[in-house]
Amino acid sequence: MIRLRLSLELDYDIGEPGCDFIFNIHAAHTARQRVVEEALTLSQNVPTKVETDPATLNRYLRVRALAGPLRLAYSATIDLSHHFAQPSQIAEVPVARLPAQVLSYIYPSRYCQSDRLHRLAMREFGQQWQGYSRVQGIRDWVLQRTTFSQNTSDSNTSAIDTLLETVGVCRDFAHLMIALCRAINIPARFTTGIDYGADPALGPTDFHAYVEVYLGDRWYMFDPSGTAIPMGFVRFGTGRDAADVAFATIFGSVTSCAPRISIEAIAGADGRLLMPYHCAEALSTDS
Amino acid sequence: MIRLRLSLELDYDIGEPGCDFIFNIHAAHTARQRVVEEALTLSQNVPTKVETDPATLNRYLRVRALAGPLRLAYSATIDLSHHFAQPSQIAEVPVARLPAQVLSYIYPSRYCQSDRLHRLAMREFGQQWQGYSRVQGIRDWVLQRTTFSQNTSDSNTSAIDTLLETVGVCRDFAHLMIALCRAINIPARFTTGIDYGADPALGPTDFHAYVEVYLGDRWYMFDPSGTAIPMGFVRFGTGRDAADVAFATIFGSVTSCAPRISIEAIAGADGRLLMPYHCAEALSTDS
Amino acid sequence: MIRLRLSLELDYDIGEPGCDFIFNIHAAHTARQRVVEEALTLSQNVPTKVETDPATLNRYLRVRALAGPLRLAYSATIDLSHHFAQPSQIAEVPVARLPAQVLSYIYPSRYCQSDRLHRLAMREFGQQWQGYSRVQGIRDWVLQRTTFSQNTSDSNTSAIDTLLETVGVCRDFAHLMIALCRAINIPARFTTGIDYGADPALGPTDFHAYVEVYLGDRWYMFDPSGTAIPMGFVRFGTGRDAADVAFATIFGSVTSCAPRISIEAIAGADGRLLMPYHCAEALSTDS
Amino acid sequence: MIRLRLSLELDYDIGEPGCDFIFNIHAAHTARQRVVEEALTLSQNVPTKVETDPATLNRYLRVRALAGPLRLAYSATIDLSHHFAQPSQIAEVPVARLPAQVLSYIYPSRYCQSDRLHRLAMREFGQQWQGYSRVQGIRDWVLQRTTFSQNTSDSNTSAIDTLLETVGVCRDFAHLMIALCRAINIPARFTTGIDYGADPALGPTDFHAYVEVYLGDRWYMFDPSGTAIPMGFVRFGTGRDAADVAFATIFGSVTSCAPRISIEAIAGADGRLLMPYHCAEALSTDS
Repeated sequence: MIRLRLSLELDYDIGEPGCDFIFNIHAAHTARQRVVEEALTLSQNVPTKVETDPATLNRYLRVRALAGPLRLAYSATIDLSHHFAQPSQIAEVPVARLPAQVLSYIYPSRYCQSDRLHRLAMREFGQQWQGYSRVQGIRDWVLQRTTFSQNTSDSNTSAIDTLLETVGVCRDFAHLMIALCRAINIPARFTTGIDYGADPALGPTDFHAYVEVYLGDRWYMFDPSGTAIPMGFVRFGTGRDAADVAFATIFGSVTSCAPRISIEAIAGADGRLLMPYHCAEALSTDS
Repeated sequence: MIRLRLSLELDYDIGEPGCDFIFNIHAAHTARQRVVEEALTLSQNVPTKVETDPATLNRYLRVRALAGPLRLAYSATIDLSHHFAQPSQIAEVPVARLPAQVLSYIYPSRYCQSDRLHRLAMREFGQQWQGYSRVQGIRDWVLQRTTFSQNTSDSNTSAIDTLLETVGVCRDFAHLMIALCRAINIPARFTTGIDYGADPALGPTDFHAYVEVYLGDRWYMFDPSGTAIPMGFVRFGTGRDAADVAFATIFGSVTSCAPRISIEAIAGADGRLLMPYHCAEALSTDS
Repeated sequence: MIRLRLSLELDYDIGEPGCDFIFNIHAAHTARQRVVEEALTLSQNVPTKVETDPATLNRYLRVRALAGPLRLAYSATIDLSHHFAQPSQIAEVPVARLPAQVLSYIYPSRYCQSDRLHRLAMREFGQQWQGYSRVQGIRDWVLQRTTFSQNTSDSNTSAIDTLLETVGVCRDFAHLMIALCRAINIPARFTTGIDYGADPALGPTDFHAYVEVYLGDRWYMFDPSGTAIPMGFVRFGTGRDAADVAFATIFGSVTSCAPRISIEAIAGADGRLLMPYHCAEALSTDS
Repeated sequence: MIRLRLSLELDYDIGEPGCDFIFNIHAAHTARQRVVEEALTLSQNVPTKVETDPATLNRYLRVRALAGPLRLAYSATIDLSHHFAQPSQIAEVPVARLPAQVLSYIYPSRYCQSDRLHRLAMREFGQQWQGYSRVQGIRDWVLQRTTFSQNTSDSNTSAIDTLLETVGVCRDFAHLMIALCRAINIPARFTTGIDYGADPALGPTDFHAYVEVYLGDRWYMFDPSGTAIPMGFVRFGTGRDAADVAFATIFGSVTSCAPRISIEAIAGADGRLLMPYHCAEALSTDS
């Protein structure tokens, strides 16, 4: 069990006549991700509401903010009890046996046009041994062909753009990997959290986007941009792609600053400090 | 209450070594759409399974078919107890009050790139009176600018293509209307059924795609291609767009024939025959 | 006759091992645009060559620069003897009578996908009276639907993007107008120069992109972004779209500064100063 | 010297009130492609005009046809005196030394969005030995990744679509090869003719699209779809891409039949019959 302490601060300056926000910055409650404690503070005295979407377990914070400055601070202590598995023991799930609630993750979405990549993905991956290793092969293929570079993509950039232009940030790597998995009928979803363990040379601690793939009987984590340590990922939201799980969806006129984020491993309830590390096993926090 | 009797037959010729299907051809169970009776027969003696996705209520039929011919016949008797409402009484729901499970329907999807149409939609519809009438205005705008024509679009055609090329079939009209609604933060989803009441000059009875928009406290039906009579729509599936709710998703090598479909109003349990008609009220079968 | 004095300075810092440039910053020689005098200076002592493309009359300056700083200064005095015509006297040219060298300007190009806009353009402009006024109508349509805004488009932005997103800079306005003209078989080309007469509030004097349309027997100027005074436009290059007539095409690793540009009307050979003004006549400097 | 005899018949049924055509079905006159004799007949007694574009040497036939049937027959005898060269002796031309009239062929065009493929092309081909062999490598890369298949593409299909979907016809192979060449600053153009030597299993003799690349001091032929014998290619038109050189551009309401085309090698003026063959040398008919 790994215990993580995270905190984040978001600052906005809101224009008249105020602004609605939907935040997805609360750690999800799952069987293997326990929120030990958490706190949320806002600089404005406005009502807030946190709801959980039953299908995804995403927790949405609605804020109807007034014009003027808004600071939002969230901190939490999280216990992760990972499911570990041997990659060689993890099979793909035939389409005929995919659970109904997993089906939508084999269909194309806004940023993951898997329908257009079917032939290309079959050519590249169709002959490979099925199972976790094939998905790992897709992840490596994306990482090898794509250069991590800030400010090379925008909110319109899709998996196809990234495949063509071979450059992007974590979100773009995730979209391309997801599109290729779905193109060969492997369910894959977009997941958000914090880039635990990222090289400080890449900049201050930031939000992160990675991939979960449904294999065996659960969702396993993959980090296609290879910038962070998956064992330290706290899941905020999952969705079809970035369209579903922005950390902040803003309805109004707002200027925003870069978020300030920290995350660190701390000693658990038993006083022992376990640090996340790069491991060869497959990891899941899903169930 | 309207009682409808529908039947459909699908014929496939399946190549070696067989094929997986996911069908979405069962009428959904909702508070206002009751399946009085239904029957499914397959020409192959293979196991089948019907599952209901809890988030959408879509019913998925999985079939693992053998090589050779496959005929599938589904028939059902459906009672519709519509919610009727006066358009002038139906308000839009502010983003801050949208239920969590509705949120994903304001985000862009594969065929409804609403993120790219925000400015255009604001220019066209931003100044209009909010409520049902604004959505009706979007529906009319789409119908007026788009020509219904078979074989002008394909499985890659998106709302943006339809906006540019101003031609398409019911699916394309639906995608464009959905994208424009979402572009101004009105939740909209893609719904499938049968084109009850369509002009026989448009061809034999076929599957249909239309739109449901979340207004007031429920999903209301709109028929942007204007080809059929919404009061006679039996809902099969709902989803983000056509990517989610194909009537048949096929994993394998198959040739297929045109479906044979019939639908008609019949006398209800009380012996009275009520016929669907074009009405001025807003209609919902959702809850 | 209008006499203009223009000067421009470009500054680059060139990485190892040097860099090739193709500039298109020389005023074109046409029957109605006479280069009275011009001067070019480079801060590096490298060979340069100026060539004229016979098809477009564009003048290309090739420079093979060494690593290090490069400053390039061009100044010229230009006499413009415009062809003036009454819009009501200018007819469209039937396709059957278009000169061979004009034909390519009715075909789609990288940024002007006129093939995809045929139906939309027919719907909007197909019923209008043919002639200069119809083209003016296209120009007004673009100007009315598009908001001028810096940093909203990039080198990948096409006419279709601008139509959808309804925002852009002069280049984007030009691409959209060109695409709509070609969509109804009116030859249109992309032309570059300097934004004579632009409102200083839009920023310092800059390069400009506008449109020339083939009507009657010559190319007439249109300024779809409406930011400048066409009578003061000195033509540098013409082409199918921005892909053809960048002011600088750079082959190598370079950082560049914003160009410094000035243009003003001066007294002509006869000592009289004539100032460009917004006029109701159609204008051409072509032949 | 190879002598070829070609004939083609085109049949149209033209709606009211008649229709304008621009055909590009005449063999071009070049230093190495001599039109020994040719004949054109039309079933309608309407004026026709053939013009040559000085920049491309394309010959355009304008026809203003009346409503009703139109048959057009063209036949020609052509002498080809190929320039043969050893691939190992053919260098790429540095950008700084490209002739002005060749420059536009390094820029992106409607169907060849080379600007978006720069990084991908550099990754694949940037480290290869420069010269004819690198271009041959691009041609082989395209041929290897793309499956020839009728009815998989349409008039909207671009090089990027073909790269993603890995399937197409000769036109699509040509667009992809052209885009990749331009992406690394090698001039490439789209050329049309007849598929001399194509396998009859692919269907009746048809028009063909192939590629010419500017290397050394001239344009060399490449056949990226690999379906025909380049030594038997008679050039009709060249252009930036298929947008420029349709064999028929039609302005009006027309139904058309498949063209009937024949081409064969015949004995030359000296009575000797030389047959085109697949050869290892580089071939040009340009100058």
